[in-house]
Amino acid sequence: MLRVAIIGSSGYTGGELARLLCNHPGVSITAATSRQYDGTPLNEVYPHLRKRVGIICRNHSVDEIADMADFVFCAVPHKTAMDIVPHFIKAGKKVVDLSADFRLQDVALYEKWYQKHSAPELISSAAYGLPELYREKIKKAQLVANPGCYVTSVTLGLAPLLKAGCIDTSSIIADAKSGTSGAGRAAAVATLFCEVTDGFRAYKVGGTHRHIPEIEQNLSFLAGQPLSISFTPHLLPISRGILSTIYANLTADIDETGLRNLYHEMYDNEFFVRILGQDQQPATQYVRGSNYVDIGLKIDSRTNRVIITSAIDNIIKGASGQAIQNMNLMCGFAEETGLEQTPLFP
Amino acid sequence: MLRVAIIGSSGYTGGELARLLCNHPGVSITAATSRQYDGTPLNEVYPHLRKRVGIICRNHSVDEIADMADFVFCAVPHKTAMDIVPHFIKAGKKVVDLSADFRLQDVALYEKWYQKHSAPELISSAAYGLPELYREKIKKAQLVANPGCYVTSVTLGLAPLLKAGCIDTSSIIADAKSGTSGAGRAAAVATLFCEVTDGFRAYKVGGTHRHIPEIEQNLSFLAGQPLSISFTPHLLPISRGILSTIYANLTADIDETGLRNLYHEMYDNEFFVRILGQDQQPATQYVRGSNYVDIGLKIDSRTNRVIITSAIDNIIKGASGQAIQNMNLMCGFAEETGLEQTPLFP
Amino acid sequence: MLRVAIIGSSGYTGGELARLLCNHPGVSITAATSRQYDGTPLNEVYPHLRKRVGIICRNHSVDEIADMADFVFCAVPHKTAMDIVPHFIKAGKKVVDLSADFRLQDVALYEKWYQKHSAPELISSAAYGLPELYREKIKKAQLVANPGCYVTSVTLGLAPLLKAGCIDTSSIIADAKSGTSGAGRAAAVATLFCEVTDGFRAYKVGGTHRHIPEIEQNLSFLAGQPLSISFTPHLLPISRGILSTIYANLTADIDETGLRNLYHEMYDNEFFVRILGQDQQPATQYVRGSNYVDIGLKIDSRTNRVIITSAIDNIIKGASGQAIQNMNLMCGFAEETGLEQTPLFP
Amino acid sequence: MLRVAIIGSSGYTGGELARLLCNHPGVSITAATSRQYDGTPLNEVYPHLRKRVGIICRNHSVDEIADMADFVFCAVPHKTAMDIVPHFIKAGKKVVDLSADFRLQDVALYEKWYQKHSAPELISSAAYGLPELYREKIKKAQLVANPGCYVTSVTLGLAPLLKAGCIDTSSIIADAKSGTSGAGRAAAVATLFCEVTDGFRAYKVGGTHRHIPEIEQNLSFLAGQPLSISFTPHLLPISRGILSTIYANLTADIDETGLRNLYHEMYDNEFFVRILGQDQQPATQYVRGSNYVDIGLKIDSRTNRVIITSAIDNIIKGASGQAIQNMNLMCGFAEETGLEQTPLFP
Repeated sequence: MLRVAIIGSSGYTGGELARLLCNHPGVSITAATSRQYDGTPLNEVYPHLRKRVGIICRNHSVDEIADMADFVFCAVPHKTAMDIVPHFIKAGKKVVDLSADFRLQDVALYEKWYQKHSAPELISSAAYGLPELYREKIKKAQLVANPGCYVTSVTLGLAPLLKAGCIDTSSIIADAKSGTSGAGRAAAVATLFCEVTDGFRAYKVGGTHRHIPEIEQNLSFLAGQPLSISFTPHLLPISRGILSTIYANLTADIDETGLRNLYHEMYDNEFFVRILGQDQQPATQYVRGSNYVDIGLKIDSRTNRVIITSAIDNIIKGASGQAIQNMNLMCGFAEETGLEQTPLFP
Repeated sequence: MLRVAIIGSSGYTGGELARLLCNHPGVSITAATSRQYDGTPLNEVYPHLRKRVGIICRNHSVDEIADMADFVFCAVPHKTAMDIVPHFIKAGKKVVDLSADFRLQDVALYEKWYQKHSAPELISSAAYGLPELYREKIKKAQLVANPGCYVTSVTLGLAPLLKAGCIDTSSIIADAKSGTSGAGRAAAVATLFCEVTDGFRAYKVGGTHRHIPEIEQNLSFLAGQPLSISFTPHLLPISRGILSTIYANLTADIDETGLRNLYHEMYDNEFFVRILGQDQQPATQYVRGSNYVDIGLKIDSRTNRVIITSAIDNIIKGASGQAIQNMNLMCGFAEETGLEQTPLFP
Repeated sequence: MLRVAIIGSSGYTGGELARLLCNHPGVSITAATSRQYDGTPLNEVYPHLRKRVGIICRNHSVDEIADMADFVFCAVPHKTAMDIVPHFIKAGKKVVDLSADFRLQDVALYEKWYQKHSAPELISSAAYGLPELYREKIKKAQLVANPGCYVTSVTLGLAPLLKAGCIDTSSIIADAKSGTSGAGRAAAVATLFCEVTDGFRAYKVGGTHRHIPEIEQNLSFLAGQPLSISFTPHLLPISRGILSTIYANLTADIDETGLRNLYHEMYDNEFFVRILGQDQQPATQYVRGSNYVDIGLKIDSRTNRVIITSAIDNIIKGASGQAIQNMNLMCGFAEETGLEQTPLFP
Repeated sequence: MLRVAIIGSSGYTGGELARLLCNHPGVSITAATSRQYDGTPLNEVYPHLRKRVGIICRNHSVDEIADMADFVFCAVPHKTAMDIVPHFIKAGKKVVDLSADFRLQDVALYEKWYQKHSAPELISSAAYGLPELYREKIKKAQLVANPGCYVTSVTLGLAPLLKAGCIDTSSIIADAKSGTSGAGRAAAVATLFCEVTDGFRAYKVGGTHRHIPEIEQNLSFLAGQPLSISFTPHLLPISRGILSTIYANLTADIDETGLRNLYHEMYDNEFFVRILGQDQQPATQYVRGSNYVDIGLKIDSRTNRVIITSAIDNIIKGASGQAIQNMNLMCGFAEETGLEQTPLFP
């Protein structure tokens, strides 16, 4: 049994790691840290885990964790992550870091959008944890930087198109909508039930969301040239789910069948990608509780634009599920182990 | 007292007309028609109206209605509308039609997106009921075509920009999200609670929604040249509200202050338009239950695009409230009469 | 114009007072206090109030408020209320206090359920602000203690039955369900969107909710004898609304018609009470945004129990609306002034 | 592999059977019937099942089904069920029937609350499918009548108390609240999103819900004497979940520890029952997507009543999950096979 630690177990991604891992046949959760809930059973912090997860949250030191676990999920905010991850790397542990700290290959770019980096030497060796694009690198990595939730939905949605070179790379607009769990479990007026329910809004409008450089890094790599995008996040009155509606001007002469073929070529062997048919559109409720990404494809012949719609569960494929998918690859488990849940609908 | 008839009172827009009109000091609802609920008090069809609306739904003939009312709100689906509106016009009644039947000035365009038109002779005399743009025409009209809900939010959001000629008119993308009341009160699996709640999806993707020609008619008129847009509607798990996120490439050298000034110039005398400040974004919950349109303005200098966000209550400013605003103009009431409700939040 | 102050304007009841009062023809809001938002326009704290409420939140002293206003709504938590209300009373102001501090006539009872009382001398002169029961006292009062939200729904639901002496007073069970706005606008994990949505739970089970002594005070008075009840509050995933389902064993030989007559006798002249028909049940969505209380009546002949269902909007009839209804009575306005909103549905 | 048929696969319970069974290691779905969707893949009727469930819905005859399957889940409405179940029994198939048709042992009682029974001869041999109470009977049964959703939550909530004889059996009141999926997937105005969301109501008040005789059958058996209860169902604006709040007058001198012990004695070996601690209350969101029943226990010493709160996922423990639990018992699988999902929160 692989001994696994969850650093930051009281956040939504930490709780979800526990929820998913307790059904994984090859691992055992041996440490779950929380400063706030030191001494409290994780199943009191998250009562849905009663009878499934027995571990008690502790404010362990990094050295203690290194003794207790072979594999570390780091589910703490950026900045905190880069301060502790190097300890685990030095101790020879494998790590999936769910923060932004090791995602951007360009340190200067990281420092422009976030803050000074305290462990830049680790960046180049970190694999970017999007298995559908970087599977082989992930298998060999000691440190994997788990992608952002919005980033996952947009990158997987555009990858085949960009690789095929069919669109004007200056025309990409991603209008993305996320469930409220993306804002985390911290007490805040803005995410109170009464502020969010029966409502909808955009936020960080005008190119200011920190997922933008990460999306652009991915898309530029796929396109083989630098590109910039417009990205607008929105807050949905749902718990889980991201739907990104992505627009781009077509430069190639391609119809919907040709378009769909590009996606099937790239994704047909992917367990977690579902390419939808001609008259189908993804919906967040059809991926809820699963590691799937559902992708819809449409061409607006009136304006010669392609419209890609891409849906994921932000806590699973956008965070904890993808982290486990990466762990499976890093540790030799079958990639879908522990992640075969069928979406929960209704 | 103006005697008012509501044709199609059992739909959501019909019910909302009754809800708003029962507090209007200058009118009296003298007829409310419904085929399905013939003989049932409207306040049993809509129990929130108990003690406020006493009228009984009847399956009246057009002739009966013409006897009973001076002013007619036609809240029935397109096609049905064009079959009955001519009777009221001939009888000398003033009419606000909430369907699409008299919105498109080009009959051929109407017939391409809808079906054969049975009363094309009325189209040219119908005023388009967007008071912020066509107030004077509306005042003199006998027939007003009340705009579509999505159309209202997109048109008001873009009008100052298009009039000022600041954007590439081929670059407009409107990503719009609507509450479920927009789908009406007909029993249907797709709009059951369990199908919609805790979920989100796009629909009619790829330039196929019937509001497109109407939006393009409005925007082309404002731009002074024909234009095409990309428009993608989405279904929100909320009852009321539309938020449109609108993208366009800037062609003029303008900053956010300049942009904001354009909107203030055009809208500062408008009772129902609220232009938000620099760091503010509209939200559907802040216009819920009111006739307001809230507009947010942002420039993404990285991509030189403007992002307009525009929020309305789809049943009020997007339908019944705007219809009453039109009635007020047509009948000499102060424009905001009966529409001064402050939004309901939380 | 009556000059009105709102103490505690940034909470949900404070915001709602502003929302309702800005449409009241006889009053002007001249002070709105907030410690946290000192210097911020109330319409930035509550953006739905844009263009309707211009006042800026200030951390005024009680003396300043006494200078600026003739009438004071005190919308601060209990304990804080009893510390400031005496100042306004001494300054000759009329006050509606929305806290619990002056509701319980028995100081010892108050001190058992809350804490030491610092102004017990005011209790006996305070009128209990349930106009349907205590209208004449309220008219003459300088200080009115506005009832609790749950208390309002249960008391009005049972009053006719208790006055008529038809039930076993030891058998009363009130199973009550409240929208989340009842928990206020303070940042807290327990009321985050993701914790509340798509869920339901009971809380303070077993006779521990502080509204219990207040309910029992009211019901004992109506019954003419002391009584105890079982009361279980629940948290609904809705913003506004309380529905109480109230059970009692019948002691009189009465059928549903007789039962309904009792309610009509007591309430038919009440503007804000709606007694439902034989096959009708109240729903929170039918009173949302209004000051109505809707009451449904049913007898279970199998068990000889009566089941009363009583619905209100907890922020309006359960708090701010009722406070304004009391102000209207205290200041000679027509009782329904500013409170004639038709419920917002859907 | 056990060949399994789902009769009525397009309803919510049918879809949920498919969702759960596709992860069951010992079964294969060989038939899925639907009149309405004949010829449509089940994963188009339910797009969340894409890539997991390949079967095509067919309007099979009972004879065809008997050829194709060894085990039949009958997920059609009552009345329809009793017309087809006898065919499968005669053909030697094992059957779990999710309708009400074989739940009531007293045919006269069934015919009073439902309609004439066409297969009364099967009733006495049908096991009542509540494994926590009737495990041994279920193991040997050919036909199992799967309990009602409300019934499951109330019966499991009260069983230990009734067996111990601690309560006045004439005092039981069950105030139950259900998610909207309980109303099924039929198109209906009453369960449209806009009618249900942000709202709450009681229905079938006054002892008229058809689950009452079934609850009373169970509770009377446990109590060893006939009893009647008051039962009020309510409609929650959530998809899944039932919470029942159950009141009874205590007759024994028992405290909460003693009470909790009764429940632990009866349920500690039950995989799917979780008895909560002293200060814990169940919530529907903590059992969502799982087969668990969570039970909270509290005594109100002021009124000498016990208050039991019992939460289940109505589609799983209240229907399809319990049906699979029964199948597991009937066919020799470990009882929890395919049902080990941890609840999905948030």
